Amino acid sequence: MLFGKHYLMAPGPTAVPESVLLEAAKPIIHHRTPDFSQILWSVSDDLKKIFKTRNPVYILAASGTGAMEFALVNTCSNGDRVLVVVGGKFGERWLQIAKAYGLDAVVYEVEWGSAPIPEKIGEYLEEHPDIKAVFTTLFETSTGTTYDIERIAKYVRHSGAILVVDAVSGIAACDLQMDSWGVDIVVASSQKAFMLPPGLSFVAFSKKAFGLVEKSNLPSYYFSVSGYKDAYLSNTTPFTPAVSLVVQLKESLSMILEEGIDNVISRHALLASATRAAVKGVGLELFSSNPGNVCTAVKVPEGIDGEKLLSRIKDKYKVTISGGQGKLKGKILRIAHLGYAYAFDVIVAISALEMALKDEGYPVELGSGVRAAELVLREGK
Amino acid sequence: MLFGKHYLMAPGPTAVPESVLLEAAKPIIHHRTPDFSQILWSVSDDLKKIFKTRNPVYILAASGTGAMEFALVNTCSNGDRVLVVVGGKFGERWLQIAKAYGLDAVVYEVEWGSAPIPEKIGEYLEEHPDIKAVFTTLFETSTGTTYDIERIAKYVRHSGAILVVDAVSGIAACDLQMDSWGVDIVVASSQKAFMLPPGLSFVAFSKKAFGLVEKSNLPSYYFSVSGYKDAYLSNTTPFTPAVSLVVQLKESLSMILEEGIDNVISRHALLASATRAAVKGVGLELFSSNPGNVCTAVKVPEGIDGEKLLSRIKDKYKVTISGGQGKLKGKILRIAHLGYAYAFDVIVAISALEMALKDEGYPVELGSGVRAAELVLREGK
Repeated sequence: MLFGKHYLMAPGPTAVPESVLLEAAKPIIHHRTPDFSQILWSVSDDLKKIFKTRNPVYILAASGTGAMEFALVNTCSNGDRVLVVVGGKFGERWLQIAKAYGLDAVVYEVEWGSAPIPEKIGEYLEEHPDIKAVFTTLFETSTGTTYDIERIAKYVRHSGAILVVDAVSGIAACDLQMDSWGVDIVVASSQKAFMLPPGLSFVAFSKKAFGLVEKSNLPSYYFSVSGYKDAYLSNTTPFTPAVSLVVQLKESLSMILEEGIDNVISRHALLASATRAAVKGVGLELFSSNPGNVCTAVKVPEGIDGEKLLSRIKDKYKVTISGGQGKLKGKILRIAHLGYAYAFDVIVAISALEMALKDEGYPVELGSGVRAAELVLREGK
Repeated sequence: MLFGKHYLMAPGPTAVPESVLLEAAKPIIHHRTPDFSQILWSVSDDLKKIFKTRNPVYILAASGTGAMEFALVNTCSNGDRVLVVVGGKFGERWLQIAKAYGLDAVVYEVEWGSAPIPEKIGEYLEEHPDIKAVFTTLFETSTGTTYDIERIAKYVRHSGAILVVDAVSGIAACDLQMDSWGVDIVVASSQKAFMLPPGLSFVAFSKKAFGLVEKSNLPSYYFSVSGYKDAYLSNTTPFTPAVSLVVQLKESLSMILEEGIDNVISRHALLASATRAAVKGVGLELFSSNPGNVCTAVKVPEGIDGEKLLSRIKDKYKVTISGGQGKLKGKILRIAHLGYAYAFDVIVAISALEMALKDEGYPVELGSGVRAAELVLREGK
């Protein structure tokens, strides 16, 4: 068992720090108690610092897709025209939810691995002035691509539409300034940069988004924002919350805020930069033309079986990275540097990649990727 | 700190066994791996034994209300006539969900603290042959009342309607035989007799229920059964599951099945019986005319402030039991004997009740309730 330690380096669920794991081993507390209300108060305040917003951030017992649905059902109505940016699997998910609710979705198709052009979104909004909402993504995890939400927001801000951002994988890894950029709904989830197990999601609504809530006619109950809004004011939740995960959230948020949210983001940027340098050092190519801080998508080189390479990295070297999803299956690898990830995690992932490439017969100089990563990591810039 | 230990004896979330807590402190595993699929396979099989069904049991990252909504949105259509049994807060919840989705709900109003009369449900079905679904509850936690699902099922079984049972608090504490009784949808949740933290829910559909799925026109995405059905067959989940809670579920299910599901139910019945004897021994009255295994609802005696009594039990004696909800606030206490609960838990709860009653000036003979409980517990029958 030479490679006997497991490394979780997929873009979610991500590794959970030991101190956060241990929080889950404490006796469960009742959710209608002053103790739990105090925890809710504290995590709600801390979440605002991560979202960079003064709006309340609601905590749902659901995974990210549930929170995406929450954003949509509370603000849209049957037949509403909306703009959906589709450049990967999570853009597709917005489209599927919009279709499930009978919205009239205008689709901005973006080539997978590219980012949407903010000006284009402005053009869509001019062409279709009846668009009620723009659904997009902070970091399209399936292609390893960052979207420029700050510039997109400039085009949406002065239109009648709200800007809804799936920041599930992106938040706390990439910068996102909900209030100052003018994002109307931000959706996030526990199992990414928050360094928690999956099962919790977070949603914040701007005043403009709340303006649509009264007009919305889509049915919902568990995901109806009105219950969350009322409960928030009394430091509680409308339905039984995922108590143990909320207790863990308190610990992970205090770790993030102790490091400083902007330092956490800079760390992610550096890990990503080192990973990109390493990938090039090994002689491989990046998949995305606008890569970013969550995970790095790498093209599987010609002549190599991507599925076999991935299995070797996972099974022989015990490093769990991800492959491509949907039409990218077998064509890319995705190395996450997300959440509880530091410099040597990049070294481990690149080392496993180098050895597995060699195993698969690819002409790689062992150490070439690690050397390139070290050059970035040692300098720290 | 004479009373320095905390006892969680509310009807959910319930106490989590130490070995189950520790499962959550293990490193997180990725959900798209053979290891996790094997866990899903195992818990899915075990859940069937608890539900007493051969139907698949789906696992949702949501609390019980989300699973109730799942049951309804997948089987009903706009304007459908349905029968809702409302005899407490959780019957009301079915009604609220039905209203949110525009169903035409016929309400069978049951006095709070009483159980519905199965024959009456038969009469409703005869009077309204277009009823598509009957929504009811195994154990109405808000009033401490058991509903006779076996007999109710006899009336629904041969009608065109499906029988949908919220067994969130009841399952594994009260008997429920999904297949042999002919229940069409059973909804359950982690934080009750499953001895887990909140955040997971479970839903099973019969063939008759699946027959309605194709005809249903209510919109849903996160709660759409089709995704769960497909994923189930490949030992996965449609969206990121609450991994750590599922890992904990494996441990709690093996504890339940090692004791034997019917032994677990008998244990609950005995704890409930001892609690009822103790309540009478203290000189108090039961609230429900058909009490049961989940929690025992006790009338706050004349002249005693129910809220003050409850606070004293919780704050001075550190025993977390529950008060009344909605219109029963201040009028009843609810002592749970649910999940990870054994004989001495009843003794502790009754002892706290006796002392708190004395503190509040109620003429109670200290030890009278405990003695009555001991008589039942020592005999074990």
